Amino acid sequence: MSKVFVIAQGGGPTAVINQTLVGAVLAARRRHKDAHVLGARFGVRGVAAGDFVDLSALTEDDLRAIAATPGSALGSTRDKPDNAYCGRILAGLRAADADAFIYVGGNDTAGTLQVLEAEAGGKIALVHAPKTIDNDLVENDHTPGFISAALFVAEAFVSIDLDFRALPGIYVGIVMGRHAGFLTASAAAWRRDETDGPHLVYVPEAPFSVDKLVADIRSTFQRFGRCVVAMSEGVTTEGGGPLAESLIPPSRLERDAHGNVQLSGGDLGLALQERLKQEFPKVRARVDTFGYLPRGFIGAISERDRQEAFDVGVFTIEACKKGSGSVALQVAEGETRLATVALAAVAGKTRLMPAGYFDAAASRVTDAGIAYLRRLLPSPPPISTRLL
Amino acid sequence: MSKVFVIAQGGGPTAVINQTLVGAVLAARRRHKDAHVLGARFGVRGVAAGDFVDLSALTEDDLRAIAATPGSALGSTRDKPDNAYCGRILAGLRAADADAFIYVGGNDTAGTLQVLEAEAGGKIALVHAPKTIDNDLVENDHTPGFISAALFVAEAFVSIDLDFRALPGIYVGIVMGRHAGFLTASAAAWRRDETDGPHLVYVPEAPFSVDKLVADIRSTFQRFGRCVVAMSEGVTTEGGGPLAESLIPPSRLERDAHGNVQLSGGDLGLALQERLKQEFPKVRARVDTFGYLPRGFIGAISERDRQEAFDVGVFTIEACKKGSGSVALQVAEGETRLATVALAAVAGKTRLMPAGYFDAAASRVTDAGIAYLRRLLPSPPPISTRLL
Repeated sequence: MSKVFVIAQGGGPTAVINQTLVGAVLAARRRHKDAHVLGARFGVRGVAAGDFVDLSALTEDDLRAIAATPGSALGSTRDKPDNAYCGRILAGLRAADADAFIYVGGNDTAGTLQVLEAEAGGKIALVHAPKTIDNDLVENDHTPGFISAALFVAEAFVSIDLDFRALPGIYVGIVMGRHAGFLTASAAAWRRDETDGPHLVYVPEAPFSVDKLVADIRSTFQRFGRCVVAMSEGVTTEGGGPLAESLIPPSRLERDAHGNVQLSGGDLGLALQERLKQEFPKVRARVDTFGYLPRGFIGAISERDRQEAFDVGVFTIEACKKGSGSVALQVAEGETRLATVALAAVAGKTRLMPAGYFDAAASRVTDAGIAYLRRLLPSPPPISTRLL
Repeated sequence: MSKVFVIAQGGGPTAVINQTLVGAVLAARRRHKDAHVLGARFGVRGVAAGDFVDLSALTEDDLRAIAATPGSALGSTRDKPDNAYCGRILAGLRAADADAFIYVGGNDTAGTLQVLEAEAGGKIALVHAPKTIDNDLVENDHTPGFISAALFVAEAFVSIDLDFRALPGIYVGIVMGRHAGFLTASAAAWRRDETDGPHLVYVPEAPFSVDKLVADIRSTFQRFGRCVVAMSEGVTTEGGGPLAESLIPPSRLERDAHGNVQLSGGDLGLALQERLKQEFPKVRARVDTFGYLPRGFIGAISERDRQEAFDVGVFTIEACKKGSGSVALQVAEGETRLATVALAAVAGKTRLMPAGYFDAAASRVTDAGIAYLRRLLPSPPPISTRLL
């Protein structure tokens, strides 16, 4: 009897999610001579529709080329299946004679598998492989995809700070992250001392106030002659309200049918830019929205991230033997190790930055937070700023 | 008699402008045993104020570390000196006993030297070293700083296109460039075929129409199921009017005291985002403004750019012997060579993309344009998109 693995990718692409895909395919082949590995196109959508590509037919060279490519090679989806949809997914898995379904993604992806698990009756192993640039999965020390995105953000802020040393002013870079601030905090990973930017960091874990931001910028600017700020797009005000409400005149706020404020990174950026113009009329002030740039930048792929993502893929094939679960990337005594935890332990949960990683009063990442980030990132690039 | 060189950096920083600085310092030392090299802080501002750092006192190791650092190590300025200011600059050069003044920058920088030349009476050699990510200096095949910025943009669009293959939608990336489209065109340098993004490119050299943009996006989206667009922040409408006027409702347009529309990349991005939402309400549409990210990104420095910028610095010391002029980076029969041309040949002039590099009707870079960019950039990174 041949062993059939179905594999799919969910949620936002990363620089290394294809390493996980290819790690799983190569391990399945190596461990099961008659393994059949089907890739579902566009996540569970492809499973439900029976839209599969036969990954067993590819040469190792083809697979290595796919692994080295950022983005989700099979396509992805943001669908959050309801019960009826889950029924179609299970029907698709059964029609494919699947022994196991490996789904690479974040906590939404784990959530989908949890719903399927309740229905599948244990006949198909449902294995979640972690992936997210947000680094917000519980049970994990860090997640595949995060380090490469963090590398981009760290490199960007070293570079922007050098730019603003040369032509002083105020800079705000808005970084992805709705709930967890790890990626934004990475902006500060390589600071050498307090003169280096980002001088101020704002993450979703701490309540945000525009008045405090303006005051923080003013005092930083007075002290260093420039101010570089890293801000999560997910920052919220003390009352939990979206930041836009305290920045944009009510007449210009757009609301959806539920009365919720519609906010994109771009809107936030523009509103901030206007406020900075008012507060610092004579200063060069610029707000950039990094948007999708950090999450799959082909020029900033961490070697460690690449290897860990591949190893997670390999491990999923072992994990399938024990039934359903979520692969977790853990670190104990300095050693990285992979384990399987229950889907319920991960699904729908969001890991925030530990309180000790961020000093909300000072709007900065603490030494403990920096140490965590430096443990993951490559060494800082050598730079010299001795002439100014 | 010791030989005194004053050197300064003007305009926007780049990834390799410090290579030029250090190339000049090392060459001055090597060719003139008693050379004294003074770096002026913040461009001509430092010259006028007598704010110098003694570059002769630095070790070669220190200098190599500075060379490897993006940004302008001496600081920069956007000052465009009038006659009185030029008088103070000349006084500063004379007070320093300068035999030569080397100013690294773009066409504004060459323009400052041209004004100084008229006043200086030939006693001080005034040498312009080219630098600009816009690649818009006449007399040059390309300019130091451009290739590294182009590398960032090419990598960004390869990566974004992979992202949008996985999660289809519409993406517009707005790239720096007020008048010349070289940097934006670099987005297309590594396209393999017509399925690859950017599917559409808009540069300042061709008149822009929002209606054409929307029609172009619609037909591209129908054809490929996604659409990736690269747009210069400097695009203007047929009549030469700023793009904002055709995008933003008149009630929301802000005008300055002269009635000119106030427009930043962020405003343009937001206006586009709103228009795309109206036109394609059910499609994931995102506009990102790259802003300063491409111009000094420490993770995307071209080896060729680094070497050429250094060589330009070395050459300035030779050029000083012949009096004032602008160093030009030329290519003849496939060989790169450095020459000196008159300051007047470069100052205040803007080199646009040759007409043959861009097809305005198709909104795409031509094969000739791609060939030019590929001649400068490193080889494209290997990627595989065979599963979709």
